[in-house]
Amino acid sequence: MPTAAFFAIGSEMTDPARGDSNGVLAAARLKEAGFDIGLVSRVEDRVEAIASALSGALETCDVVLASGGLGPTGDDLTREGAARALGVGIVEDGAWAEELTRRLASRGRALDAVNRRQALVVEGSEAIPNPRGLACGCCLRRGKAHLILLPGVPAEFREMLEGGVLPRLREAFPEQPEVRTVRAVLAGLPEASAEPVLSPWYGRRGVSVSILPHLGILRVTLTITSPPAESAADLEEEARRAFAAGWKGHLVSLDGTSLEAALGEALLRRGWTLAAAESCTGGLLAHKVVSVAGASRYFLGSVTAYDNEAKSSLLGVAPEILQRSGAVSEETARAMARGVRARFGAACAAATTGVAGPGGGSPEKPAGTVWVAVGTPEGEWAHRVHLPLDRLSVMEFSAHMALYHLWRRVRGAAAP
Amino acid sequence: MPTAAFFAIGSEMTDPARGDSNGVLAAARLKEAGFDIGLVSRVEDRVEAIASALSGALETCDVVLASGGLGPTGDDLTREGAARALGVGIVEDGAWAEELTRRLASRGRALDAVNRRQALVVEGSEAIPNPRGLACGCCLRRGKAHLILLPGVPAEFREMLEGGVLPRLREAFPEQPEVRTVRAVLAGLPEASAEPVLSPWYGRRGVSVSILPHLGILRVTLTITSPPAESAADLEEEARRAFAAGWKGHLVSLDGTSLEAALGEALLRRGWTLAAAESCTGGLLAHKVVSVAGASRYFLGSVTAYDNEAKSSLLGVAPEILQRSGAVSEETARAMARGVRARFGAACAAATTGVAGPGGGSPEKPAGTVWVAVGTPEGEWAHRVHLPLDRLSVMEFSAHMALYHLWRRVRGAAAP
Repeated sequence: MPTAAFFAIGSEMTDPARGDSNGVLAAARLKEAGFDIGLVSRVEDRVEAIASALSGALETCDVVLASGGLGPTGDDLTREGAARALGVGIVEDGAWAEELTRRLASRGRALDAVNRRQALVVEGSEAIPNPRGLACGCCLRRGKAHLILLPGVPAEFREMLEGGVLPRLREAFPEQPEVRTVRAVLAGLPEASAEPVLSPWYGRRGVSVSILPHLGILRVTLTITSPPAESAADLEEEARRAFAAGWKGHLVSLDGTSLEAALGEALLRRGWTLAAAESCTGGLLAHKVVSVAGASRYFLGSVTAYDNEAKSSLLGVAPEILQRSGAVSEETARAMARGVRARFGAACAAATTGVAGPGGGSPEKPAGTVWVAVGTPEGEWAHRVHLPLDRLSVMEFSAHMALYHLWRRVRGAAAP
Repeated sequence: MPTAAFFAIGSEMTDPARGDSNGVLAAARLKEAGFDIGLVSRVEDRVEAIASALSGALETCDVVLASGGLGPTGDDLTREGAARALGVGIVEDGAWAEELTRRLASRGRALDAVNRRQALVVEGSEAIPNPRGLACGCCLRRGKAHLILLPGVPAEFREMLEGGVLPRLREAFPEQPEVRTVRAVLAGLPEASAEPVLSPWYGRRGVSVSILPHLGILRVTLTITSPPAESAADLEEEARRAFAAGWKGHLVSLDGTSLEAALGEALLRRGWTLAAAESCTGGLLAHKVVSVAGASRYFLGSVTAYDNEAKSSLLGVAPEILQRSGAVSEETARAMARGVRARFGAACAAATTGVAGPGGGSPEKPAGTVWVAVGTPEGEWAHRVHLPLDRLSVMEFSAHMALYHLWRRVRGAAAP
């Protein structure tokens, strides 16, 4: 199995505002393409550090992929590091410089010296065009190893990886084994409760299992590489059947389809529309719904009624309810769901009201307490949710639980 | 300078749904604590891979920190890997097992065999309590090196790093040098335009600069470690002055305060309230506003009017406007902002309407075209925004631009 290494370059990698999404994506896609990922690492943006990391990997790996450090500013030093590792120079890619001139001209700007740096490539390499940004990537072969440099901006990295790098690698490594992946998405199930279905899969040769819990959602990935006896296709089929039988109503999909996308599909099957009423989640529930392309076919809109006055005036929650039960209560959540359905004329609704924290809690309703209500033409249900975590985690978990309960009810008997 | 290495353990690390936020946080906090971060890496959850990664690092680093693989399931193998690296066994931490029994009992559950695994520690180590989850961490000393294992769940990792690990390291390494950090947050400025202010800082000894662009927001971090002549405090002061003079109206903060938090502070200074009207951002703008703790002091609520009918009925946008100018237009954006101010009785409003894509575009209004309108008691402004990226990036960029333009107008002359 050919090996690959990934380096995220740039000291902004040590900034807590940013996760290394490029490394995660690269590792997953290279693994699927049949590479053994020996190393996923970060390198600070000093020329010597970059040069030493790359030359070390070029000696032992078939593919060395690096992201970041190709931008226009003085802390972008990846080309310099790669050139030093290879003992070559840095040159301008004429075709890309022309492309930059053309693109900037269309915005009424000239190609200045700062932006011109983004047409530089390592000597002897081939430029990889960047459909979304100004910095080109580049790739070259040194002995049996392929070195590939891509920009670090995640959207640019992703598109160039898919469109520019993976096709080149498929051509360079035509004999890759068949790799199959089952991506189960589960909702509303604690990690430990997913375990009995998974445990038979841990020991099996040629199979790797990973579980990623995220605030009410579990993503389980089963990767099947070159199994000893069974064919990969048979193993995949066996896993699909076992997961479906074991996780039943918690199983959102087996192909990585997200909960919000599955909800959208279920709504379309039923021909139902959706509106949302939010308090503590503050727009997150609606945002998750519209993150699915084409959501306008079923999503009408939402009201964030952060203020109690808005809960009454926009959602029609009776002031007596708010007085009697409080804003964080089953009664208020149900009234919000009913109110927003009526307001938008929607078939279905989801509502959240709770204490996201850190302040605002009480002994009866500590921070992290949230009521979720969902309604469809077939009924109305409410659930109390409690997760004593930080503000954003409470919001995320509550939004997931609202989507989960609604998806269960919408899917109903109409599930395929 | 003592050295540190970080390992994220678990093959879910190769799942694209997850960035390695623990590694980013650990690297940043250890750097601030005066450690030289030699390695930030990921390891698959195989016992041999974990053992070999940890034992290699224990030979060369003063601190080896690993996250993940301490959960209850069969793919959690970090303790096994560490024990093998050290040639010791695995034992149950009696105090933590008792704590687990107590915690589960309070939820009416017994401590079963699966969850009991979370009280296991490497022999000879000290357990690190987990205030948010069930798996304890552990730490031990081997020669001059400190090995620390923490759970991978980001909220648990963060709290245990801050409360359990960093205090121990400060005690173990009392002679750490003074490190100062300036965290500038900029809005509405392209990366290349930030460059002139930064370029004088690249070459300086003892100073490192990083720039992190994210869809209309730039985060610039200047880390000052043991400067040769000037004191760190003088250099920090010089940087603060240079950044403030150079970036003027784009500079949101010098201490990492986010744009949404700065907007909240500006609203509170003015005594103004806020409402939002969203179309293409679908709730994201409101969610960003309420992600700031205490947002209920100024945020009243929002309407996501995804549907044109909702734009008229909930936000009072005249059907003639929608017919004449279309939903994606300056006129509609302004009418939405006015409508939501009136609806909530808010002093200020921000509104977004656009084509998030990938579908729905036209030659005049291609996907990525968004109109943003903001209103305050001092006026009303509209801006056209265009970023031809994927759906979620368009939403994120538009929300940032709406927050930026509103923050500029609210800050106004009242800025400190």
